Amino acid sequence: MLETLLLPDLREMIESSDERGLHEFCEAFYPGVTANILSHLTPEEISKVLNKCHVSRKAEILPFLPIAMQVDIVEHMDRNDLSRLIEEMAADDRVDLLEQMEPEHVENLLPLIAQAERRDIRKLLSYPDESAGSIMTTDYASLPKNITVKEAIAKLRLQAPNRETIYYIYIIDEERHLLGFVSLRNLILANPDARLADIMQRDMISVKVDDDQEDVAHVINRYDFIAIPVVDQDNRLVGIVTHDDAVDVLHYEAQEDQELLVGVQPLEENYLSEPIFTLARKRGFWLIVLLVAAVFTAKVFQYFHDTVEQGAAITLIDRILMFLPLVLACGGNAGSQSAALVISYLSTLDREVKKFTVRDFWKIMGREVLVGGMIGMTLSTIAFVLSYWLLGLVAPPIVVSGTVFIVIMISTSVGALLPIIFHHYDFDPALMSTPLIAAMMDMIGVVVLFNMARLMG
Amino acid sequence: MLETLLLPDLREMIESSDERGLHEFCEAFYPGVTANILSHLTPEEISKVLNKCHVSRKAEILPFLPIAMQVDIVEHMDRNDLSRLIEEMAADDRVDLLEQMEPEHVENLLPLIAQAERRDIRKLLSYPDESAGSIMTTDYASLPKNITVKEAIAKLRLQAPNRETIYYIYIIDEERHLLGFVSLRNLILANPDARLADIMQRDMISVKVDDDQEDVAHVINRYDFIAIPVVDQDNRLVGIVTHDDAVDVLHYEAQEDQELLVGVQPLEENYLSEPIFTLARKRGFWLIVLLVAAVFTAKVFQYFHDTVEQGAAITLIDRILMFLPLVLACGGNAGSQSAALVISYLSTLDREVKKFTVRDFWKIMGREVLVGGMIGMTLSTIAFVLSYWLLGLVAPPIVVSGTVFIVIMISTSVGALLPIIFHHYDFDPALMSTPLIAAMMDMIGVVVLFNMARLMG
Repeated sequence: MLETLLLPDLREMIESSDERGLHEFCEAFYPGVTANILSHLTPEEISKVLNKCHVSRKAEILPFLPIAMQVDIVEHMDRNDLSRLIEEMAADDRVDLLEQMEPEHVENLLPLIAQAERRDIRKLLSYPDESAGSIMTTDYASLPKNITVKEAIAKLRLQAPNRETIYYIYIIDEERHLLGFVSLRNLILANPDARLADIMQRDMISVKVDDDQEDVAHVINRYDFIAIPVVDQDNRLVGIVTHDDAVDVLHYEAQEDQELLVGVQPLEENYLSEPIFTLARKRGFWLIVLLVAAVFTAKVFQYFHDTVEQGAAITLIDRILMFLPLVLACGGNAGSQSAALVISYLSTLDREVKKFTVRDFWKIMGREVLVGGMIGMTLSTIAFVLSYWLLGLVAPPIVVSGTVFIVIMISTSVGALLPIIFHHYDFDPALMSTPLIAAMMDMIGVVVLFNMARLMG
Repeated sequence: MLETLLLPDLREMIESSDERGLHEFCEAFYPGVTANILSHLTPEEISKVLNKCHVSRKAEILPFLPIAMQVDIVEHMDRNDLSRLIEEMAADDRVDLLEQMEPEHVENLLPLIAQAERRDIRKLLSYPDESAGSIMTTDYASLPKNITVKEAIAKLRLQAPNRETIYYIYIIDEERHLLGFVSLRNLILANPDARLADIMQRDMISVKVDDDQEDVAHVINRYDFIAIPVVDQDNRLVGIVTHDDAVDVLHYEAQEDQELLVGVQPLEENYLSEPIFTLARKRGFWLIVLLVAAVFTAKVFQYFHDTVEQGAAITLIDRILMFLPLVLACGGNAGSQSAALVISYLSTLDREVKKFTVRDFWKIMGREVLVGGMIGMTLSTIAFVLSYWLLGLVAPPIVVSGTVFIVIMISTSVGALLPIIFHHYDFDPALMSTPLIAAMMDMIGVVVLFNMARLMG
């Protein structure tokens, strides 16, 4: 709503370099809303707008944009401006960004960044992927135990402006061992002269820096925490993981599970940003494995068929029908993959409170045709080779591999199209379930196989 | 870990009614941890433990238990104790509980509850399912705009003990219209003499009380909020939705999507709590629809087969093979359903930081055999009737319906078993993808179909 109203004005301000107007735009909304509006512009336009924002505001807005867009935007920035921006960003957000930038670019940038931040960045960059360390932030509030509530509040006033969250304050000793915590709520409610040692909660749930990120997210979620402390092997506080990052992990893992469930190797990026070739490879891998399995099924079919029909003449059709399960599996599997990926993409749009556009539609259909073509070519070639190897005849392999190609081309398009239609008419796209698509593809597969056979015979 | 260490001691304390020990146990841990330990006991034992807790502690622990268990526990409580407990519980937690209790029980209970809480309960109970109103809480902090920061903190001290979250403080006028908000963080950092009207954030994101709960969860998540205000049609503040309830909604919706994706109508409860008959019905619905679709495919097969093989003798096997796609679809679909449900159940265990027990294993296998039997009987009967209607012959329908029954019995067991084995050996159970299970069932389906045909012929 807001986006469509503001975009024309915003574009005009960019063209006329309206410094005051753009600055006002930066400050007018909650940073996430500003980012939502900006996401409709090109990276170059966005960097022009952000140039007119105060650096601290810029550091708040940027992390709300998709990470690939962030990388594109910072490429349009002056190195000095960028190093100031990175100093201002929250510790976890900036590391997320730096991890996606060209390593060379990062190495050139780091010397320009203040020492304290630089050390912090190097440390956070060093934790293994998918560990608690890789999603934690070092922006947290910590205090010693031997001060009063009044002193604590005064100290927080000094610490807090740079802290992503001060809703839990961690109590540590001189060696940074974690002793307990006080929630900001309890601090406000406590007697100003009480000592932190007396009001702090000692029974604490913390995670280790090398714990799996999914486990960490589950713990935060299980206990309804806003944040959880992360400690090293000696129980020294090294960071915190906040609830919003935990939700992102859970979403990412759920999406990974859904992809695995239809035999797609987990995507790195969202469906529309993944390079087409990578997408074809990640979808093709299991399809090839399943194709090989289906060749064994064909062999089993052949054995039983010839045993049961002993004496009867074996026709060309008999030799083709033994591959029927293979053909139907290819169509069902490829179609299910398309449907599951598109359904998951549509739910990501909902999650990011975005609309599905006509441009998205053509992009998706274009991808499915291309990916379908690549997978179809590969699988039909393999199907040809394996069925020829099995039979030593030429006609059935031609029919089978031709059918595999056609069925895969149809199934990827149909699998992608149906959830989009459901979404458009405000039904849950997941209603267009994978078995339903498989059932359609069964019918289409039978029709194509027999017609190919008719052409041959 | 902790659970297994503490349970024997805890059981002994319950048996000897060790009042002091049980009271200490209630206070020793974070409420979520206490709930986790208690969840290994029977509802009767749990209510004995909770009886020894202070009512405010009891109100904190109870909501961390699964909702069905909460209902069982409160059935063991004295009505007066229960009404005190309900008064103490957070507004959204108690409504969640009351919604699941017998309506009659609730009506008997309400007169015992203090008037303010009773009015609040009636109001929250009145919002439609899956709306923002149904997941919001009325425990929030609100202040007028014309007071200073110092006065605000003093007022919060009075309001806060009963408020689930005071991290955002909402600024309202006399008619409760929402004007803006101040985070507790900014309140602490602000000059004590500043007026709230001058430091509050006016640009606010709020949701309407009848908005869909999924959209509300997406907004909270999109902007990394801890809570979001809920307003009525006149922009009057009526409640807030907190981040932890938003995550629960997202999880619930993701699970629903995953169930729909394999053609299971969304379960009300978790897989192991759903009554077997309901489970069979929710899985059977789409399987029957897909079976009918597969009968059309068989008809199409018959038409093309007889056209292509014109002149050749039509054998019994030909009349059976036209149902091959139907048989394979039944096996693949039923197996995929079992796999997806078990995978989703296993991930719920991870989410609740629970272990998979041998008892769970037998429960799951028992359910799958029973549900498989019910679905198998139904589908094989329908398959018999429809294939007889199609052909007017008796032999092929007997083979087809027999095969459908056997294939479904095997596929539900295999579909459930394989993810459990993967989970046991610490692989991601989702790797045992639905197409892989379908591929196995294809092979098994072919073997069973031909062997049934051999028996007949």
